[in-house]
Amino acid sequence: MPNTPSTLPDRAVIREVGLRDGLQSIATIVPTAHKMEWIREAHAAGQREIEVGSFVPARLLPQLADTAELVAFARELPDLVVSVLVPNLKGAERAIETGAHLMIMPLSASHAHSLANLRKTPDEVVQEVARMRAARDAAGSKIIIEGGVGTAFGCTLQGRVEPSEVLRLLQALLDAGADRVSIADTVGYADPAMVSRLCEQALKVAGDRFTCGHFHDTRGLALANVHAALQLGLTRFDASLAGIGGCPHAPGASGNASTEDLAYMLESMGVATGIALPRLLELRAKVAGWLQGETLHGSLWRAGLPKTFNSIETSVL
Amino acid sequence: MPNTPSTLPDRAVIREVGLRDGLQSIATIVPTAHKMEWIREAHAAGQREIEVGSFVPARLLPQLADTAELVAFARELPDLVVSVLVPNLKGAERAIETGAHLMIMPLSASHAHSLANLRKTPDEVVQEVARMRAARDAAGSKIIIEGGVGTAFGCTLQGRVEPSEVLRLLQALLDAGADRVSIADTVGYADPAMVSRLCEQALKVAGDRFTCGHFHDTRGLALANVHAALQLGLTRFDASLAGIGGCPHAPGASGNASTEDLAYMLESMGVATGIALPRLLELRAKVAGWLQGETLHGSLWRAGLPKTFNSIETSVL
Repeated sequence: MPNTPSTLPDRAVIREVGLRDGLQSIATIVPTAHKMEWIREAHAAGQREIEVGSFVPARLLPQLADTAELVAFARELPDLVVSVLVPNLKGAERAIETGAHLMIMPLSASHAHSLANLRKTPDEVVQEVARMRAARDAAGSKIIIEGGVGTAFGCTLQGRVEPSEVLRLLQALLDAGADRVSIADTVGYADPAMVSRLCEQALKVAGDRFTCGHFHDTRGLALANVHAALQLGLTRFDASLAGIGGCPHAPGASGNASTEDLAYMLESMGVATGIALPRLLELRAKVAGWLQGETLHGSLWRAGLPKTFNSIETSVL
Repeated sequence: MPNTPSTLPDRAVIREVGLRDGLQSIATIVPTAHKMEWIREAHAAGQREIEVGSFVPARLLPQLADTAELVAFARELPDLVVSVLVPNLKGAERAIETGAHLMIMPLSASHAHSLANLRKTPDEVVQEVARMRAARDAAGSKIIIEGGVGTAFGCTLQGRVEPSEVLRLLQALLDAGADRVSIADTVGYADPAMVSRLCEQALKVAGDRFTCGHFHDTRGLALANVHAALQLGLTRFDASLAGIGGCPHAPGASGNASTEDLAYMLESMGVATGIALPRLLELRAKVAGWLQGETLHGSLWRAGLPKTFNSIETSVL
């Protein structure tokens, strides 16, 4: 110390989770036509991975009841990876049927949170992933299975979560047949030093099958945490337009990393995202109009792009 | 790439600038008694460097007209470094008279901004620093002279600011007699990669006399920028309680790095700040009460500290 600046990757992918993680905590029901407009315009702005919804029972989350329709719509957009969240085998079967490209099975590394949220222990969730893999293979489907380890940096119920337990579960998910694994700071407890340490270990366990970081901005550290992960070579991050969603245990707190602020940070750093920021900001304004009365987040929309910033000016379509 | 995590410093100092950079852009006049309470409680919470005001003419900034009184008050608190901003020799003479411990002379690396703001070229400001140094030495004062290079990452008027010009000015300030230099992202254009590059060079030019980074959160990147600078070994950062102040050219945008979020990030990372966060959050609530109707920022105050967080529980007094 002083250290030399780290080498940064040339490219990174932002996976839009606003339509799932964002909207699931928002009361205003967004009509399917608006969601389709969101997906279409996010794609036109250059986004190439979108989590369009969740195959949970519609009675539990009416906001996401149109997930199958959205998958069908999104699949028609060229070069778009269409993701869905699935809470169990039944959800996975629906994801396989609809032809989504990727399904994410959340697993909570906190036993307390896992039991409260999914009514399963983490190892029971791992077993469910094995059943999903069997179902995927039996169906001849190519859907990618991602195991997402949440509460990876701590939990509002249990408190501390051991990094060794997170790493064990990443390995167990891969052993059970997950194609990829990711980690999530579900309750916004991570700091950049924790992210550096855990990502370094996760890369040792899972190599390039550790593909995504999901950082909530609950305590303002989401972008600093992305920066730490990026320095270790992680190149895919979840984010939510206008920073909606985030930690369900901190009402009113900041939500997910905001897509537009994250894309701005990465592009400004010379890490290409493929996203045309002016178009993304137009979309943000439109979505903000649909979500009037809801708490939105992010800074770039208000300040605007720097005079010195050279964005991709036109759609990559 | 992947890189190993950087070594982080054990300790860092947060210099509170809310009473100067924060309040100067706030219309509500805060009574001197409240400012004293703020200083006293920030000190009780463990803050050891506070910029209490600015020696600009009172008719220009009535909010800061009580700076001399605040210096006298703050000087009585043990182990507190009392800073003031000075815009010229006349201000420096007042700082010397009042017995402040440190005076910061702002210099804008953007020629356009320098002329618009200070009506001097950057090199004329350097000459003023030489006169301040002569005045300091003639008075037998021990006040530390800090030259702060602003618009170091770009400017809303001029656009691009060459890093080579920033480095030239850091050297010129030291040559003119400044004891220390710092850099400021006055308009919130910096990203972590820019910060890494410029700080690395600034440390080569100024060594341990490059002592402070001042990052505005205009586009949400203040804490990521601090993280980048910290990795290079910089250990002093300006911040403002509730994130007030910030870029004067982006009305409504996020302000300075918020003291409480920054202290939380550092403490969580194991970088000791000496700050007791629960006490700092109590002070934030009090100051927020004084500034009702003003736009405040920051995330921690709403979400609260993580269950896993071990703060210094009692005052370090």
